[in-house]
Amino acid sequence: MISHIEWCKDSLRLLDQRRLPDGIEFMECRTPEATASAIRDMVVRGAPAIGITAAYGVALAAFGPNVSDGEALLAEVKAAAKVLEQARPTAVNLAWAVRRMAAKARQVAKGGASADVLRRALCLEAIAIHEEDIAACRAIGRNGLLLVPEGGRVLTHCNAGALATGGYGTALGVVRAAHEAGRVKMVYADETRPYLQGARLTAWELSQDDIPVTVLCDDMAASLMAKGFVDVVIVGADRIAANGDTANKIGTYGLAVLARHHGIPFLVAAPASTFDMALPTGAGIPIESRAAEEVAVIAGRRVVPGGVAVLHLAFDVTPASLISAIVTERGVISPVTGENVARVLGQAK
Amino acid sequence: MISHIEWCKDSLRLLDQRRLPDGIEFMECRTPEATASAIRDMVVRGAPAIGITAAYGVALAAFGPNVSDGEALLAEVKAAAKVLEQARPTAVNLAWAVRRMAAKARQVAKGGASADVLRRALCLEAIAIHEEDIAACRAIGRNGLLLVPEGGRVLTHCNAGALATGGYGTALGVVRAAHEAGRVKMVYADETRPYLQGARLTAWELSQDDIPVTVLCDDMAASLMAKGFVDVVIVGADRIAANGDTANKIGTYGLAVLARHHGIPFLVAAPASTFDMALPTGAGIPIESRAAEEVAVIAGRRVVPGGVAVLHLAFDVTPASLISAIVTERGVISPVTGENVARVLGQAK
Repeated sequence: MISHIEWCKDSLRLLDQRRLPDGIEFMECRTPEATASAIRDMVVRGAPAIGITAAYGVALAAFGPNVSDGEALLAEVKAAAKVLEQARPTAVNLAWAVRRMAAKARQVAKGGASADVLRRALCLEAIAIHEEDIAACRAIGRNGLLLVPEGGRVLTHCNAGALATGGYGTALGVVRAAHEAGRVKMVYADETRPYLQGARLTAWELSQDDIPVTVLCDDMAASLMAKGFVDVVIVGADRIAANGDTANKIGTYGLAVLARHHGIPFLVAAPASTFDMALPTGAGIPIESRAAEEVAVIAGRRVVPGGVAVLHLAFDVTPASLISAIVTERGVISPVTGENVARVLGQAK
Repeated sequence: MISHIEWCKDSLRLLDQRRLPDGIEFMECRTPEATASAIRDMVVRGAPAIGITAAYGVALAAFGPNVSDGEALLAEVKAAAKVLEQARPTAVNLAWAVRRMAAKARQVAKGGASADVLRRALCLEAIAIHEEDIAACRAIGRNGLLLVPEGGRVLTHCNAGALATGGYGTALGVVRAAHEAGRVKMVYADETRPYLQGARLTAWELSQDDIPVTVLCDDMAASLMAKGFVDVVIVGADRIAANGDTANKIGTYGLAVLARHHGIPFLVAAPASTFDMALPTGAGIPIESRAAEEVAVIAGRRVVPGGVAVLHLAFDVTPASLISAIVTERGVISPVTGENVARVLGQAK
């Protein structure tokens, strides 16, 4: 598949996901501010992907005209971290990646290295975050593939795929690994209003990889389950609390309730960087509000009468009790309890 | 509110609901065939409304150039009934209205009346069906209003309003009556993909009547329930089996499951003409399939990549066990059992 986050020595090239599936266009970011705007405006989205993008955004700070030594670098990195962390609130990977980059900057700045060495160190750290994420996705795929039954029909929501990560995907990483093992009969992709990531992105990347995919409207998923067409639901995550409560794209919680009603396993797939062990439960997860216009106007047509109120919830929280298992690169957490989360993650984050 | 189905002596004037909320345009039908096309293409939709429209469509048969006597009338009516009944399969009101009109035609044709008298009789029967439907909606409103708690926040799906009936509405009839009684704090309207009847029609007609309404995407309803923002769910119906199983717009069944999970009452509002006592359960209800393009293309923009499969389920069936009550013009059916359906309807259909 296309490389959608690409580091080009001193700039960042992002596939503009808003234009998919009909347009393949790239945006070049040369500053942390431009990178933060790209994240805010959803040029790039998906919790791991915005973490990686933000890491490169911090690296771009090192290429500023004022970076002559370690002290100047730290000032630029601090400013970059601030603007990037504010770009979107719910996915914890963003803050995680920015903090890791800032720690690296502090470490290398201490040594009195030249500006070139500093730049190189930050680029390498961002590239490491990117490569580690791809490796984590592949491990998630390996760890999760046996949870997809032979001939499995998988329902997914939003896009937790290659486009949402460094590559390969989390939920779609499990799908890809299961497909490679010959276990996937069909992937049902909720279109996922209001941004239609399922219709536009999941369908696009799966069809590129010749994995069978069928798109449906979000309000059709319950019927599909009732007809016995869904063997397992697999979704990604934007932030997971220490007890396993999971914030993800709006609509995820409803699917979890429906899966429980129909006796269908409900899986979350996410790397360790998506866990926020500082939050005991999902109640503390900040949920982003976005503009009403993003619901009220579709493809340039206003579908809600002017003056009518519109609710735009961007994420929801699924309680751990509705999640059959969380698949991470370090292993499978099941049943989903605080104890098992800590055990599998090894408190290592 | 605007009169959306209007009989103009020898033609039928329909508000083109596909253009709402941004355009107010009317279509004139002069033949049964044109009326059937308008129903099939969703110029008019909603089970009771398409019943009324089809009744006028049969009346239009009496204005054909060949109708000189009762025999000729019956031939035209028979042909009209055939084309109209095939327009859409799920809503039983259509077949019900067509059968009633055909019975009236047979009755008046027997008497050897003049063509003018025959035409007049059919027009009056269609107008009676229309007026009885409005009266039924008002009775449904009266019968259901106390099921909305004081300060009630109502969630509804699709449009079961004035636009879906002769006027006043079924689900929105209950909402209107409860609002007139000062009981409604907010109506939450699912946008209802793929046709967006909630965003385009429900929001439009409620805001015209100054009833507070907020539109949300279908995948946000579960979160709204979890937050405690929904006191009751009220929807319409396209066909109800003798045991109370209810076919309605796709997404209804999922809402019923979610309502049960959250302990929220789930109400269906429909006139007696929506019951199909010949079907013992919902398993026998014919479910319409519609074109994939209606999901894949929104406002002229293709949102699903070309070549990817698309599922378009137009209706689903909610089992009686998930329905707290069915509100009809003849009374409230609760608990929803075959016995109670028969008792309230008086087997009179």
